[in-house]
Amino acid sequence: MKRSERLVDMTKYLMERPHTLISLPFFAQRYGAAKSSISEDLAILKHTLAGNQDGILETVAGAAGGVRYIPYLGKEHAENYLEDLAVRVQDPKRILPGNFVYLSDILGNPQDLRQIGKLIATRYAYAKVDTVMTIETKGIALAQAVARYLNVPFVTARKRSKVTEGATVSVNYISSSLDRVSKMELPTRALPKGSNVLIVDDFMKGGGTLTGMQELVHEFEGSITGICVLCEADFDKEKLVSDYLSLIKIDQINQQEKVISSKPGNFLTETDFSRF
Amino acid sequence: MKRSERLVDMTKYLMERPHTLISLPFFAQRYGAAKSSISEDLAILKHTLAGNQDGILETVAGAAGGVRYIPYLGKEHAENYLEDLAVRVQDPKRILPGNFVYLSDILGNPQDLRQIGKLIATRYAYAKVDTVMTIETKGIALAQAVARYLNVPFVTARKRSKVTEGATVSVNYISSSLDRVSKMELPTRALPKGSNVLIVDDFMKGGGTLTGMQELVHEFEGSITGICVLCEADFDKEKLVSDYLSLIKIDQINQQEKVISSKPGNFLTETDFSRF
Repeated sequence: MKRSERLVDMTKYLMERPHTLISLPFFAQRYGAAKSSISEDLAILKHTLAGNQDGILETVAGAAGGVRYIPYLGKEHAENYLEDLAVRVQDPKRILPGNFVYLSDILGNPQDLRQIGKLIATRYAYAKVDTVMTIETKGIALAQAVARYLNVPFVTARKRSKVTEGATVSVNYISSSLDRVSKMELPTRALPKGSNVLIVDDFMKGGGTLTGMQELVHEFEGSITGICVLCEADFDKEKLVSDYLSLIKIDQINQQEKVISSKPGNFLTETDFSRF
Repeated sequence: MKRSERLVDMTKYLMERPHTLISLPFFAQRYGAAKSSISEDLAILKHTLAGNQDGILETVAGAAGGVRYIPYLGKEHAENYLEDLAVRVQDPKRILPGNFVYLSDILGNPQDLRQIGKLIATRYAYAKVDTVMTIETKGIALAQAVARYLNVPFVTARKRSKVTEGATVSVNYISSSLDRVSKMELPTRALPKGSNVLIVDDFMKGGGTLTGMQELVHEFEGSITGICVLCEADFDKEKLVSDYLSLIKIDQINQQEKVISSKPGNFLTETDFSRF
């Protein structure tokens, strides 16, 4: 196979398997090429990704070595996307009763999910994440998008007992949007004991749901690598969690005057984009 | 930019935007290259994808022309994956009370979702699909995976009234697993009138949920392009829908004897893989 064809196939192969170590001999055999040629191919790939600030090709030396594609966005990409997203979020038509915000169009759009997934995966690219966790319903799209770029499984906590899940572990939490005690649960088999968990959710008001997920992780003897939400409502009340990132921060919602204002959240300032 | 670098970037660019027409002048400008060079690049890309039976690069001639990347898997890939998946599904540990099957690990695995999404997108690659529809909770991962490869939005019907959705349209349906009348709904703004909708779901027993989604599409004056489920339970009862595809068919479940048997569903025989 010619270099040009190898490069097409290799790019596709690596992009479909983020964070997975692929050995040079594997590629050498796949293309019937010398390892030195493969090394040259990979140098081109690495260089091109870095030039666009859109992905890192990491080389691991030694006998057990190879290459690994890390989805990783540069700061400028992140700023541009989040500033654009903040403008789209502050559309008064999005305001829903109870100071909620309609985001289902964004969370159902593959191109937004690609950008959002890649952004959050950039932040945790070099952290320990075994599993992404969210709670039904709207967080699922976000969890799946992040899991795709970290290439780890995601699990979904559920708010009601379902007969169709088998054995579960459940915790109580204070749903601060509703000011009442609720229950969430996760099937026992969904999360191996001792996992490193990244918690994500679509919308955060008081943070009660996030504390529930934190407790759920602890019940599974796991560790929390981070907490990241798409939108944070920053006008409402005291937050029950402190150590979290938000992509978008909503400063105010006034339903009567149909005003909503938002801007990029602390994600931008709290993320180290310097790996390029 | 050299051809080798162009090929890496072009592969990535097209893969991230399935079913989107990209003009030759766009690439020519992006790389500062002649249109004839870009044409040669694209011929290499097309040839490589076709050789692997993993994607079609479609050329659209004329002034408004360009190229379009169509995620499309060859028959052999489909057979291999579904046969492997069927074996994984027929693990007695998956049997849940009520003859349900635990599939959350598969529906939470990015590599499975990639294959499943690509497979279903292959079947509907040349059909009219404006939106993918599913119902919460476990269908969401499937809908998102398919939507990603068709590059269209997906919407999620909900089973309970939520105050946080704004105006909704609701329908009643017979949940045949539970033999009772239930309600599902979709926000009015979620689906434009007259959309062509692909309905997907994770698990089908009697098909009652699918009839509910069909009715929901009709309430939005839409058309149904197809119905596709991941797993079909083929031992249970009469189906309420007839025209559907299943990737996996479960022939029998015996909870007491811990036996479950499954095989690829009618998806394989009903899909035309001949576009290669």
